[in-house]
Amino acid sequence: MAKQERKKVIVVGGGFGGLNCARRIAKNKNCDVLVLDRRNHHLFQPLLYQIAMAGLSPADISTPIRSVFRKKDNVRVLMAEVESINPETKIVGTSAGEFPFDYLVLACGSEHSYFGHEDWEDFAPGLKTVEQAIEIRRRVLTAFEKAEASTDPDELRQWLTFIVIGGGPTGVELAGALGEITRFTLSHDFRSIDPSAARVILVEAGPRVLAAFHEDLGKRAKRDLENLGVQLWTNCRVTDVNAEGVKIGAEWVQAKTVIWAAGVKPSPLNKQLGAPTDRQGRVHVTGDCSLANAKNIFVIGDQAHFEDAKGETLPGLAPVAIQQGKFVADLISREIKNKPREQFAYLDKGQMATIGRRRAVVEVGKLHFGGMIAWYLWLLIHIYFLIGFKNRIFVMWQWFYSYVTYKRGARLITERDWHSHAPRT
Amino acid sequence: MAKQERKKVIVVGGGFGGLNCARRIAKNKNCDVLVLDRRNHHLFQPLLYQIAMAGLSPADISTPIRSVFRKKDNVRVLMAEVESINPETKIVGTSAGEFPFDYLVLACGSEHSYFGHEDWEDFAPGLKTVEQAIEIRRRVLTAFEKAEASTDPDELRQWLTFIVIGGGPTGVELAGALGEITRFTLSHDFRSIDPSAARVILVEAGPRVLAAFHEDLGKRAKRDLENLGVQLWTNCRVTDVNAEGVKIGAEWVQAKTVIWAAGVKPSPLNKQLGAPTDRQGRVHVTGDCSLANAKNIFVIGDQAHFEDAKGETLPGLAPVAIQQGKFVADLISREIKNKPREQFAYLDKGQMATIGRRRAVVEVGKLHFGGMIAWYLWLLIHIYFLIGFKNRIFVMWQWFYSYVTYKRGARLITERDWHSHAPRT
Repeated sequence: MAKQERKKVIVVGGGFGGLNCARRIAKNKNCDVLVLDRRNHHLFQPLLYQIAMAGLSPADISTPIRSVFRKKDNVRVLMAEVESINPETKIVGTSAGEFPFDYLVLACGSEHSYFGHEDWEDFAPGLKTVEQAIEIRRRVLTAFEKAEASTDPDELRQWLTFIVIGGGPTGVELAGALGEITRFTLSHDFRSIDPSAARVILVEAGPRVLAAFHEDLGKRAKRDLENLGVQLWTNCRVTDVNAEGVKIGAEWVQAKTVIWAAGVKPSPLNKQLGAPTDRQGRVHVTGDCSLANAKNIFVIGDQAHFEDAKGETLPGLAPVAIQQGKFVADLISREIKNKPREQFAYLDKGQMATIGRRRAVVEVGKLHFGGMIAWYLWLLIHIYFLIGFKNRIFVMWQWFYSYVTYKRGARLITERDWHSHAPRT
Repeated sequence: MAKQERKKVIVVGGGFGGLNCARRIAKNKNCDVLVLDRRNHHLFQPLLYQIAMAGLSPADISTPIRSVFRKKDNVRVLMAEVESINPETKIVGTSAGEFPFDYLVLACGSEHSYFGHEDWEDFAPGLKTVEQAIEIRRRVLTAFEKAEASTDPDELRQWLTFIVIGGGPTGVELAGALGEITRFTLSHDFRSIDPSAARVILVEAGPRVLAAFHEDLGKRAKRDLENLGVQLWTNCRVTDVNAEGVKIGAEWVQAKTVIWAAGVKPSPLNKQLGAPTDRQGRVHVTGDCSLANAKNIFVIGDQAHFEDAKGETLPGLAPVAIQQGKFVADLISREIKNKPREQFAYLDKGQMATIGRRRAVVEVGKLHFGGMIAWYLWLLIHIYFLIGFKNRIFVMWQWFYSYVTYKRGARLITERDWHSHAPRT
C-alpha cells in the first residue's frame, strides 16, 4: 500500500454528533483530528433536567472531552470558540488561533429560541447548558424556601406556582419532576407550606403534549402528569413573560418560577457558511450531510436541515446526531481510500420521555407503550449511553437512593456570584 | 412534673457549630428551635478544597439543612439573612421577618480577610463557599486549557504558574492537590503542554508551613509538598496582587492563577452585638460561651473569641465549634430545669491536614506522625464525619476511583453567567 498523505479533520462541537464522529475518525490512523468546543466537557443532554430538578450533580452527566480522547494520540482537543470559517482557504479561525483542514465537521447543536422575545429569558430560563440547569435549580429550590418563610397567602401562591412552557419531551420531564417534588418533598421537609397551594402548570401552544409521539402516548403522558398533580394547559399561547408571571392569551397567570422549554434555534455559526438555511436557521445539507457548495464541509445534528428520501426533515434528536456523526466519519475514511460517497439514511430506533419517578412513554417503530416497564427501559438506555463507567455507577446509585428515599441528592442552592461581599438575594 | 413553658431557641448558622447545637437542643421536647441560615445547605468545609480541585461535586459534601431536621417536629428551618439582633427586646430581625427568642446561639462562622486589600479578591479568590470553590475550579481548569492552546512560551508559563497564598492547612491541601494535578493529569490528557513548565508555589509569610502544628509535621509537610513539585516560599510577604500575578516583597511573580488561603475574619454580624471584639473582629465570650452583657446570647465557633482556663485563645477549627455547639445545647437544657451553668472546656482531639493523594500529617496530643497511615486516618475521619449516609458512599467511591485511575471526577468548567447570549471568556 502506498503511503498516504495525512488528512486534517476538524470537528467542531463535543455533543453527541461531534463526539461520535471524532471517536470514529480517530480510529483512522491516517487522520489527524482536532476537536474544538467552547466547553471543556461533553454533556449528556437527556439528563440535564435532572440537574435542574436537583436529582443529579453536573459532574455526574459531564465528561471532559479531552478525557474521552486520552489514549488517542492522533486527536487534539482545544477549548476554543470558532469565530470564522473560510471554505475557500479551508481555514477555521478560533479564539485560540487559525487551523487548516481537509475536512470540517460542524456539530454545534442548538440553543434556546424565544422566537424574537429574547427579553423573556431573564424570567423564563431555558435548559440547554449546565449553567442554565443550575439557575433553574436555584430558582425552584429558592421558591420553596421563600414559600416556607412567607406569611402572605397571595405571595405564597406565587412562590408555589411553577409554569413550564412547552409540551415536548423536556417540558414533560420538567413538569413531571416538579409534580413529584411538590407532592413528596413538601410534606416532609417543610413546616409551613400548604401542599394544596402548590401548582405545576404545563403550557403548550398545540392541542397536545409530546406532539412528535403517537397520539396514544400523548394521552398516556397527560394522564400520568395529571396523576402527579400537573395541570395541562394545551392550546394555550404564551403572549408575554415577566417577573410576575406568564400572559396566556389575554390573561396573566402569576408565578415566580417559569421555565422555558418551547423552542430551539441552531448555532449562529450557520450564518457564516454562505449556505441556504431553513426558517429556523438550520443549514440545508445534501444527502451525504455535506454542504452543496463545499463538499468537504459537513453539518450534522441539530445544526443541520436534512431531508430524508421521503422528503421529511429529520428531528433534532440525539440518535440522528450520533448516526450522522458516525456516517460522516466513515465517509471521510472511505473517501481517503478513493471510495465513492454514500447517502445518509436515518435508522429510527424510536424515542422516549419520562414522567416523574416511574412512568415513561416509549415509541419504537409501530410499537408504543407507557408505564413502569417503559420507565425501566428509559432508565436502562439512558444509563447505557452515559459516557464513562464511573458516571454510570454514580447515576445508578443516585437513582436508586432517590427512588427508595424520595430524597433528591443535589438540593443545594448556589449563588450566581462567587464574591464573599456580593449581595445575597 | 409540672408543665414547663416552651422555650424559643434560635440558632443562626448551619455550619459545624450551629448544626450540632440545633441537633442537640432538638432532643429537648420543651424547646422550639428555629435554625436560620442564608444558605439552604450545610457544607462540609474540610473537603471544600476537593471541589476547587475537581475531585468532588458540591452536592457530595453538602446536605440541605432542612433534611437534617426532617423528622424533628420542634425544629423549623428558614433560609434567611439575619439583619438585626436586639438583646433587650430579644428579637432577631431577618430578611424573612422578626422572630422572638429566649435563647440565641450565633454560629455564623468566618469569611475571607484580605487584611484591608479587598480589591485583591478578584485576582485571588478565597475558599469559603461552594461558589468560590467552583470559581477556583474554573480558573485552574481554564488555565490548563489556555496553556494547551498557547503558542507563546511566556504566556504558557504564566498559565502554568499557580500561586497559593497562605501556608495553613487549606493552603497546604490546595498546593498539594495542584502539585498532583500538574504531575499526573498533564502528561496524559494534554498534547502540547510541557509539564516542566508547570509551577506550583506556596507562599507563606511566616517561617514555616502548618505553623499551628508541631515543627516536625511542618517539616514533613514541606518534604511531601516538595516531592509533589511544589515550591515553598516561606518568610515571603505578599505586598500586592493583580491580574498579572503576585508581588512578593519588591518582586513581581507572574501567574494567571492565584488562590487566597491566608486569613479569615468573623461574620460582620458581630458589630451589632454591642459587645467587645478582638483585633480580628471576634466577639469576646465568657466561660460559658455567652456574652457578658446578655447571658441568653451565645456566640460559638469561628465567630467567637474564647479564652480557655490557661488564657489561650481557642483556634478556628471544626472540633471547637462542634464541642461548643453541644455544650451550649446542654447548658440551655439544664438551665430550663433550673440547674446552674457550667464552664466550657475544649477537649483537644488533635488536628490533621492532607498533602496530595496519600500523604497527611496528624497531631493527637503529644503524638504526631505523617505519611500514608496518617492519610488513611485522615480519610477515615473525614468520611465518618460527613453528614448523610449517601454522601459518605459517594465520596468514598469518588476517592477510590480517583485513587485507582488518577482521574478527577468533577472536571467541568462552568461559566459564571447562565444566559445563553452571555459572552464567553
